[in-house]
Amino acid sequence: MLVVMQHDATAKDVDRVVTIIQDMGYEARPMPGAQRTTVGLVGNDGRVDSSRLEALPGVAQIIHVTQPYKQVSREWRSENTVVDLGHGVTVGGDSVVVIGGPCSVESEEQIVSAARIVKAAGGTALRGGAFKPRSSPYSFQGLGKKGLELLARAGKATGLPVVTEAMDAEGAQMVAELADCIQIGARNMQNYSLLKTVGKMKKPVLLKRGMAATITDLLLSAEYILAEGNQNVILCERGVRSFDPAARNMLDLTAIPIVHRLSHLPIIADPSHGTGLRDKVIPMARAAVAAGADGVMIEVHPEPDRALSDGAQSLFPDQFTQLVGELRAVAAAIGRSVPVAKAGTA
Amino acid sequence: MLVVMQHDATAKDVDRVVTIIQDMGYEARPMPGAQRTTVGLVGNDGRVDSSRLEALPGVAQIIHVTQPYKQVSREWRSENTVVDLGHGVTVGGDSVVVIGGPCSVESEEQIVSAARIVKAAGGTALRGGAFKPRSSPYSFQGLGKKGLELLARAGKATGLPVVTEAMDAEGAQMVAELADCIQIGARNMQNYSLLKTVGKMKKPVLLKRGMAATITDLLLSAEYILAEGNQNVILCERGVRSFDPAARNMLDLTAIPIVHRLSHLPIIADPSHGTGLRDKVIPMARAAVAAGADGVMIEVHPEPDRALSDGAQSLFPDQFTQLVGELRAVAAAIGRSVPVAKAGTA
Amino acid sequence: MLVVMQHDATAKDVDRVVTIIQDMGYEARPMPGAQRTTVGLVGNDGRVDSSRLEALPGVAQIIHVTQPYKQVSREWRSENTVVDLGHGVTVGGDSVVVIGGPCSVESEEQIVSAARIVKAAGGTALRGGAFKPRSSPYSFQGLGKKGLELLARAGKATGLPVVTEAMDAEGAQMVAELADCIQIGARNMQNYSLLKTVGKMKKPVLLKRGMAATITDLLLSAEYILAEGNQNVILCERGVRSFDPAARNMLDLTAIPIVHRLSHLPIIADPSHGTGLRDKVIPMARAAVAAGADGVMIEVHPEPDRALSDGAQSLFPDQFTQLVGELRAVAAAIGRSVPVAKAGTA
Amino acid sequence: MLVVMQHDATAKDVDRVVTIIQDMGYEARPMPGAQRTTVGLVGNDGRVDSSRLEALPGVAQIIHVTQPYKQVSREWRSENTVVDLGHGVTVGGDSVVVIGGPCSVESEEQIVSAARIVKAAGGTALRGGAFKPRSSPYSFQGLGKKGLELLARAGKATGLPVVTEAMDAEGAQMVAELADCIQIGARNMQNYSLLKTVGKMKKPVLLKRGMAATITDLLLSAEYILAEGNQNVILCERGVRSFDPAARNMLDLTAIPIVHRLSHLPIIADPSHGTGLRDKVIPMARAAVAAGADGVMIEVHPEPDRALSDGAQSLFPDQFTQLVGELRAVAAAIGRSVPVAKAGTA
Repeated sequence: MLVVMQHDATAKDVDRVVTIIQDMGYEARPMPGAQRTTVGLVGNDGRVDSSRLEALPGVAQIIHVTQPYKQVSREWRSENTVVDLGHGVTVGGDSVVVIGGPCSVESEEQIVSAARIVKAAGGTALRGGAFKPRSSPYSFQGLGKKGLELLARAGKATGLPVVTEAMDAEGAQMVAELADCIQIGARNMQNYSLLKTVGKMKKPVLLKRGMAATITDLLLSAEYILAEGNQNVILCERGVRSFDPAARNMLDLTAIPIVHRLSHLPIIADPSHGTGLRDKVIPMARAAVAAGADGVMIEVHPEPDRALSDGAQSLFPDQFTQLVGELRAVAAAIGRSVPVAKAGTA
Repeated sequence: MLVVMQHDATAKDVDRVVTIIQDMGYEARPMPGAQRTTVGLVGNDGRVDSSRLEALPGVAQIIHVTQPYKQVSREWRSENTVVDLGHGVTVGGDSVVVIGGPCSVESEEQIVSAARIVKAAGGTALRGGAFKPRSSPYSFQGLGKKGLELLARAGKATGLPVVTEAMDAEGAQMVAELADCIQIGARNMQNYSLLKTVGKMKKPVLLKRGMAATITDLLLSAEYILAEGNQNVILCERGVRSFDPAARNMLDLTAIPIVHRLSHLPIIADPSHGTGLRDKVIPMARAAVAAGADGVMIEVHPEPDRALSDGAQSLFPDQFTQLVGELRAVAAAIGRSVPVAKAGTA
Repeated sequence: MLVVMQHDATAKDVDRVVTIIQDMGYEARPMPGAQRTTVGLVGNDGRVDSSRLEALPGVAQIIHVTQPYKQVSREWRSENTVVDLGHGVTVGGDSVVVIGGPCSVESEEQIVSAARIVKAAGGTALRGGAFKPRSSPYSFQGLGKKGLELLARAGKATGLPVVTEAMDAEGAQMVAELADCIQIGARNMQNYSLLKTVGKMKKPVLLKRGMAATITDLLLSAEYILAEGNQNVILCERGVRSFDPAARNMLDLTAIPIVHRLSHLPIIADPSHGTGLRDKVIPMARAAVAAGADGVMIEVHPEPDRALSDGAQSLFPDQFTQLVGELRAVAAAIGRSVPVAKAGTA
Repeated sequence: MLVVMQHDATAKDVDRVVTIIQDMGYEARPMPGAQRTTVGLVGNDGRVDSSRLEALPGVAQIIHVTQPYKQVSREWRSENTVVDLGHGVTVGGDSVVVIGGPCSVESEEQIVSAARIVKAAGGTALRGGAFKPRSSPYSFQGLGKKGLELLARAGKATGLPVVTEAMDAEGAQMVAELADCIQIGARNMQNYSLLKTVGKMKKPVLLKRGMAATITDLLLSAEYILAEGNQNVILCERGVRSFDPAARNMLDLTAIPIVHRLSHLPIIADPSHGTGLRDKVIPMARAAVAAGADGVMIEVHPEPDRALSDGAQSLFPDQFTQLVGELRAVAAAIGRSVPVAKAGTA
C-alpha cells in the first residue's frame, strides 16, 4: 500500500504518516520523488485498514497496489533506477550496455583474451561463469573460486566491470568480494534463501528470469531483494520454455516494454541463452535494443569450437565486433547509445 | 528429395532426370536457380529409391531433405522469394513493408479514413477484416462481402494494395476477386482444405502462424499451398500461446531469422495480435524490423475507442505516423528501407 | 444472459419474457428444466439493458453469464446432456464408452477386422479416419469417400456406431450420411465455418480440443455448434502442446472435471493422440476413466507395424482387450460401467 | 557408461573392471542385481574410451547410456527402488501411499489435529510446511524451526512419518534431524547446491518437478542426489506451467508411466498443487493412482477457510476421508493397495 503525499505536504506530515504506519505494526518507507513524497507501507498482508491514514493532513491519496509486488513497482518509484557497476558504467539510463564474455572461465589465458576482445570491440562489461549451474552433475561445473580470481584479473587488465553468477550464500559472498555484479541464474530465480542473502548485500544484482516465470514472478523475486534493502537490481530476459524445439528457449522481448511500464528497474536481454543458436544472436540482440532493452549480455569466446560449455551459442570474436557496431546503429536510431567502460589497459 | 544438377548440366540432362522421376511414379519440378538447376521430387513418401538417379549424367548430388517440407525450403530454392502485391509493392526483397489498417471493416467512412491515415503516414498496404474469426459466436463477425467491397473502394482511393482474411473456400474466392492478398488466419493455419483451395489460386497468400504451431508446422502448412502450385506465400509471426498472461500472446521474433535460414519465403510480424497491448506495438514493431522481418502488420483505427473489435490493441492515427518514422530509422540502421505504394490519390 | 423464472411462473409469464427479448432485438430460447424454466437471451453483445426484464412477473433473477459462452454452460442447462449415437449407445450418462479403431481406414479387410477386434473386446463404438488432416501434404491423406463406405460396412458388420472426422463442409455432408458421429479434429477446432456447418446438422458431433486451446476456447467452439441448433456435442481432451518432448502431447486430464463443472456436455479422452506412445495408452486411459471421463477413444490396429499412419501409438489387438478389462474395473471402482453396443454380427 | 557383466562373471572379473575404470580416472560403482552385476562408470564426460573394457573377461557388453542421466536410469538398476520412510511405510513397492496434511504448520493444535484426521482416514504419512517458499516476500513464510518441532510432535502423536520442505542447507540439516523425509520444492528443483547437500545425507528425499522441467530435467536433478550417494529419492509430479488459466498448473499424469519406464525411482503425484482447486483434487488423485502413481500427496486442513496458505486447495476433513476410500477402490482395481502406518496413538 502506498500513501501518496500532496505536493505541499510538510516533513511533519510525512513523519506523522510514518508513525501511524508503525503503530499499525507495519514498516514505513518514505520515498522522496521529484515532485512529491510517497510513503510505502511494507508488510501489507492484505488486511491493512487504510482508514486511519486517509484523512491525515498532507495525504493526497491511498493507492492499493493491486500487484503483489511493491518496491519494484513504478507506483512506488516513478524514476528509472540506474545501477552503477563501477568503472563508469551504469545500467538503466540512456545508454545501452553490452556485456560480453565466455560462458565459463576456463583459464587465465582464455578469460583475459576474451576480456580484451570485448574491450576492443567496444563492449561495456565482462561476463564469465565460475560457478556453473549445469543440468547434469557430470558436466563441467566451473572453476569455482579460482575462476573468480581469474575473472577479476581479466577485469583489472581491461577496466571492464565483471558480472558473474553465484549459486549459494557462500558463493555470493565470494562474488561480492571479487566481482562487480552478482548474477542470479534462471534456475535460482525462486531460490528465496539466496535472494534474501544478496538482498542484504550492497553489490548490484543481475536477476535472470526463470524458465517458466511470468513477469509478475520475476518482479516478485526482485522484490525479495529490494525488501532486504538492496535496490541495485538489474532484470534479465533470457528466454522461457516453449513448445517449439526450433530454438533452445523462446526469447520474450515483449517483456522489455512490459517491465519498463510496471517497474523502475532496468532490464537487459540475453539472446545467447535466449536462442541457443549462434547465428540468431546478432539479429535478436539488435531486436532487444530496438525493443528498448537497457543492455544485452552476449556470449563470446576466443575459440568457440573449444569451449567447455555453450560453444554452440558463443560468438566468434569478429562476430562480436560486428554485433557491437550494429547495436550502436540501432541504439542511435531510437535515440540511445552504447557506452564504453572508462579506465582500462587493453 | 532434391536432385541437384551440376553447373554445366545440359537441358537434356535435366529432362532425363525429370522423365525417370515420373517413371518412378512421382512428380518432378525443375527449378532453375542463378547458378544451377535443381529438380524436386514431389510426393516422396519416404520409400523412394534414389539409386536410379545418383549415377545419371549431370547429377551433382541427391539431397535427402530431412525436414518434412520441401518446396518451402532453402535447399529447394536458395534465392529469396519476392511476392508481388501489385501497386508496385513487393514483399521479400530489401524493403520492409508496413501493412496498416483496422481490425474490422465497419463502414465506408471508417475504412476509407483508415486507408488515408495509412497512406499519409507512409504505410505500404491496407489491412481490414471482412470475415472475422471470433472466439465467441456472439461477437461481431464482420460485414462479409460488403466489407470486401468497402475495402476495395478504400484501396482504390489510396492506391494501397489490400490484404484481408478468408475463412473458407467461398470467402477465399471473394477475397481473390476483390483484394490483393488472401490472409489465412492463425486459427485456420492447419485447415488443410482451405490451404489447398488457396494453393490452387494465383493470388498472394499471407499465412499466419497458429497459436501452438512450431516453425516446422508453419512451413508444412505453407508447403500445402506451394504443393498446389501457388508460390506467392508470405509467412507471418503473430505470437504464440504462453503461460504468461502479461500479454495476449508471446511474440516469437526469433522465428524471423529461423525462417529466413530454413526457407526462401518472406516473413513479416504482427505485433498488434502478437502483444494485444497498444503501447507494446511500437517497440515490438521496431524489434521485428531489427530482427530482420520483411514487414510488419499493424492495427490502426481512426477512433480506436469506438472500434467494434480489438480496440485495445489498435494504434491511434498519430501513433501510427510515429511508428512508420521509427521503423524507417531502424530499417536504415540495418541497411533496409520502408517502401511507398506507387499510385494513389489520398 | 439468462432470465431465471420462479418455480411457480406460468406459461404466460414465460411467453411475456420471450416476447420482450424479441422486441429488444435478440433471440429468446426457453429451456424447461426439472425445477424451473430459464429463458436464454441469444445474441447478447454486451450492451443488453436488462432493466426491462428484471421486474416482470415470474422472473426470479437475471444471471449475467460472466463466461463468454452460454448454451454450453451448466447455468443454461443443469442436467447432463446425453448424446445418442444410435445402436443403443449413449454418451454422457453413467456409462463410459470405449471407442476403438485404427487411425486410418486402409482397406475393407483392415477396417472390418479392426471392428471385429473392437466388438470382441467389448468396445462400444468404431473409429477410423477417411479424411486425414496430416501436417505434411506428402503424407497419406486418407481414402476419402471410399473410406467412409468401408467404415459404414464395418459398422454394419458389427453393430458398432461409427465416429469419423470431417475436414470441410462437403466432407461433413458425406460423414453425416454414412456415419453416426462427425468428428471435428483438433486442428479445426476454431474453423468456425465448419463448426457452423455441423451446427446446422442433427448428427452428433465429437469436438476435439485444439492443441493450444484453453477450456474456455473449447467451450466457445462448442457454443458455435449449439448456437446453430445442434445440441448433440461430445467434447474430447486429446492433449495439448507442451515444452516436454517426452510425449507427443500433454494429456490434460484435469480438463475432465473442469468441463463437468462448467458444462452439461459429455467429455471423453483420447490417450492415443494425447500421449503418442503405445505403452502409455493403457495407464492413461485408466486415469481418464478414474478422473470421470464419459469415455475414451483408443487407436487399435490389426497390425500396428503395418499401419499407414500413427502405427507407433496404436494398440495391438490383445492390448486393447486387456485395456477394456482394466477400464471396466476402474469404472466399477467409481460406480460407473462400460456399455456394450446392442446389435451386431461380429 | 555401464559395463554389463555376464551372468557367470566372477567377483574377480568385477574387481578387475573396477580397477581399470579407476585407472582411467573415473569412479566405478558395482551394482549387484538379481541376475547379473553391472558396473557404472561415474564421471563420464563423453570422452571415455571404452575399448580397454570391452574385451575384459566376464564383460557382456558396454552400454553407452544415451540419456544424460545415469544412476537414476532403469539401465543402471532394473529393480524398483523402494524408499523406507520409517514407521513401516515404504514407497515404491506394490502399495500406494497417501501423504496428507496442511500446506503450512500454523500451531500445535492445528497440526496435531490435522495429523489425527489423516491417521483416522487411513492416510500413510503427514505433510506440513515449516519453511514456505512464497512468491511474495510479504506472504506468510512459515514457522521455521518451531514448525518442525510441532510437526515432529504431531508425527509422534500419530505414528505417521513426516515429510516437510527444506529451502537451504541449514534448513535441510534441521529437517533431517526432526522429520522423516526432506522435500525439495518445485522452485528449488535446479538449486544444485541444495541437491548436493541433501545428496550427502541419508534421509529420504522427495524431489518435486519444477514448473517448466522436462522429465529429463527432473531425472537429472535426481541424479545430482544419487551421485552424492543418497539413493533414497522419491519423485513427485505436481503440475507444470501451461497456457490455460483454468487450473493453477497442468498436472502431467503421463509423467508417471514415463518415469516408471525410464527410472527405477518411485514417483507420486500432488494433485493439490497440481490443480489448485479443491473439487478437482479427488478426481485427479484417483486418476494419479489409476495411472500407476506410487502415492499421492494431498493438502487437508482442519478448517480450510482459516488456513494461512493454500486454503482454496485444501480438502475438508470429510473429503479427505472420502478420498482415501476411493483411492483404495481404484488401487484395488489395478492390483495395488493403500498401506497404513504401523504404530500410532491417534
